[in-house]
Amino acid sequence: MEMQSWTRNVRKVIPYTPGEQPKVKNIIKLNTNENPYPPSPLVGKAISEVSMDSLRKYPDPACVNLVQAIADYHKKDSSRVFVGVGSDDVLAMSFLTFFNSDKPVLFPDITYSFYDVWADLFRIPYVQKPLDDSFKIKASDYEEECGGIVIPNPNAPTGVAEPVEFFEKIVAAHPECVVIIDEAYVDFGSKSCIDLTDKYDNVLVVRTFSKSRAMAGNRIGYAIGSPELIKYLSDCKFSFNSYTMDTITLAAGVASIADDEYFKEKIDAVIATREWTKEQLSSLGFTFPDSMSNFIFAKHESVNAVFIFEELKKRGIFVRHFSKPERIADYLRISIGTDEEMQRLIKNIKEILGVK
Amino acid sequence: MEMQSWTRNVRKVIPYTPGEQPKVKNIIKLNTNENPYPPSPLVGKAISEVSMDSLRKYPDPACVNLVQAIADYHKKDSSRVFVGVGSDDVLAMSFLTFFNSDKPVLFPDITYSFYDVWADLFRIPYVQKPLDDSFKIKASDYEEECGGIVIPNPNAPTGVAEPVEFFEKIVAAHPECVVIIDEAYVDFGSKSCIDLTDKYDNVLVVRTFSKSRAMAGNRIGYAIGSPELIKYLSDCKFSFNSYTMDTITLAAGVASIADDEYFKEKIDAVIATREWTKEQLSSLGFTFPDSMSNFIFAKHESVNAVFIFEELKKRGIFVRHFSKPERIADYLRISIGTDEEMQRLIKNIKEILGVK
Repeated sequence: MEMQSWTRNVRKVIPYTPGEQPKVKNIIKLNTNENPYPPSPLVGKAISEVSMDSLRKYPDPACVNLVQAIADYHKKDSSRVFVGVGSDDVLAMSFLTFFNSDKPVLFPDITYSFYDVWADLFRIPYVQKPLDDSFKIKASDYEEECGGIVIPNPNAPTGVAEPVEFFEKIVAAHPECVVIIDEAYVDFGSKSCIDLTDKYDNVLVVRTFSKSRAMAGNRIGYAIGSPELIKYLSDCKFSFNSYTMDTITLAAGVASIADDEYFKEKIDAVIATREWTKEQLSSLGFTFPDSMSNFIFAKHESVNAVFIFEELKKRGIFVRHFSKPERIADYLRISIGTDEEMQRLIKNIKEILGVK
Repeated sequence: MEMQSWTRNVRKVIPYTPGEQPKVKNIIKLNTNENPYPPSPLVGKAISEVSMDSLRKYPDPACVNLVQAIADYHKKDSSRVFVGVGSDDVLAMSFLTFFNSDKPVLFPDITYSFYDVWADLFRIPYVQKPLDDSFKIKASDYEEECGGIVIPNPNAPTGVAEPVEFFEKIVAAHPECVVIIDEAYVDFGSKSCIDLTDKYDNVLVVRTFSKSRAMAGNRIGYAIGSPELIKYLSDCKFSFNSYTMDTITLAAGVASIADDEYFKEKIDAVIATREWTKEQLSSLGFTFPDSMSNFIFAKHESVNAVFIFEELKKRGIFVRHFSKPERIADYLRISIGTDEEMQRLIKNIKEILGVK
């Protein structure tokens, strides 16, 4: 018998590539949609109050305090809340739990580029539905019987949002599968589909603390759905890792929810800066779909995106460029920073374009 | 066409049940193998020094500082280290990455009760090999060609350790599969198989900060293996969740590794208390395999385990009892606490047994 190598039985995949986290200081980082403001001061206070002795013990696996805080915030029962290590953890676990059909899962061709990675990892068949020429999702693409649907609202990297009615039609038409609405950016001005989970047991709304709550470094995501759906998701999660949320993170999450005034103030600031940036970019010859998120997906009328990307990088300003699919290769995704950061961005773009 | 329900395509599983984390105060908690001592003071210092503003940004997805600290500690190249959210995360990801054969994965019948849960979650075929009557692993059970092997050393909940040569024979005989050695408890007195990873590219050694480093509340685990094996594991991890390790946890982990004096002092204390507890339990009519871990797996010569378990619980002392498999239903797994806690345990057991 010829010996076989262990590599034969390896699950071989092409992983997702996250945005660069440069080690150099004094840069303007507009490449991973982080919040330019720190988390609520209550978060720092809660972290400093965690007893160091308590760390020797396992955290609460049910994450009762954080789950209850999120449930109260959204006025849902705690049996309808699931928490994870960022929304990526929640989404990965949801793909594993719900997408086990022979029929394909459907999602847009231009969207969060992790969806096809999860589908490939778990050997889930999928079909990517092309956005229309104005980067809008075509409802008619989501009518066929399928193994699941996942759509971000607003979509990324386009920033385009659809109304709740748009999603209700899809959810109502698909009792045969779970529909995931990924609301990573919903706090920046679009309408949430969370209340659809009161009426339909097949819809899961996923959220994150990474963007609007300025807590990317803490890793907290969550989902709201029907109790039945959350129970299935929890069963798979507890078959993977009982203790995903650490003691400090749990305390930090509860504290963020408690400071709603700060939360709304910083969101308003980001939205105001975004609208100012839109005006500036327009006047410099950029076009973009109307973003309802904390980034703008923009294309210049004549200057190449990679050129602008590289020139900005030389000047210490990091934005994001996606080379695939080809129809977005002319676009840059620019996260919204502070007013001062965006002023410096615009000043540098003017220099690059040779505008006085 | 009759509509089908989304529940048809759900991955239905029976999750792992973690040990109870009682909410009441003033109990003696000897049920989840936690360390009775707090983490190094350097851990608290590192946590307090994390900039709250930095939390708005994503953590380093490559976890370079923590990976390098672990690599240096074990005198291995950083390309041979993988970190995760506790060793459960590392093990779950390893099952997904490496166990994709049609042949069964092999592990003991009495062992960490998460192995069969992961196998069921990922639909991996497996065969559980019975320990012998003295709770030892039979090497001859692991000779057949298979889809993978996973064995804890020391084994849990028995506490029995095998020498490195025992594992080297298994690893050398199985180039067709990955052999995982789960060293969650190795720091409490048995020999590590980490150096086997220098010589064999098909062996993965998994460790945790939860027990010997007293950091169960932080969620840090890691694996050491060949660069090729670690690369495959990382590819699957980065196809699941780019940012599993949060900013504070990364800093805490580095700080723990830096304080080796404290680490060794507390391990010595736990070992000394364990040996004292063994003597006491023996003199009270308990028998147990000779534990090399931070727990003792003990059976009384005449009194029922569930009775002792319930009586201890009434007195505020939590130990662990496994009702399955039946051949361990007469045993209690008792974690090693402080000297004072173990003295109180022994005092209470004497009362329960009616010993003066």
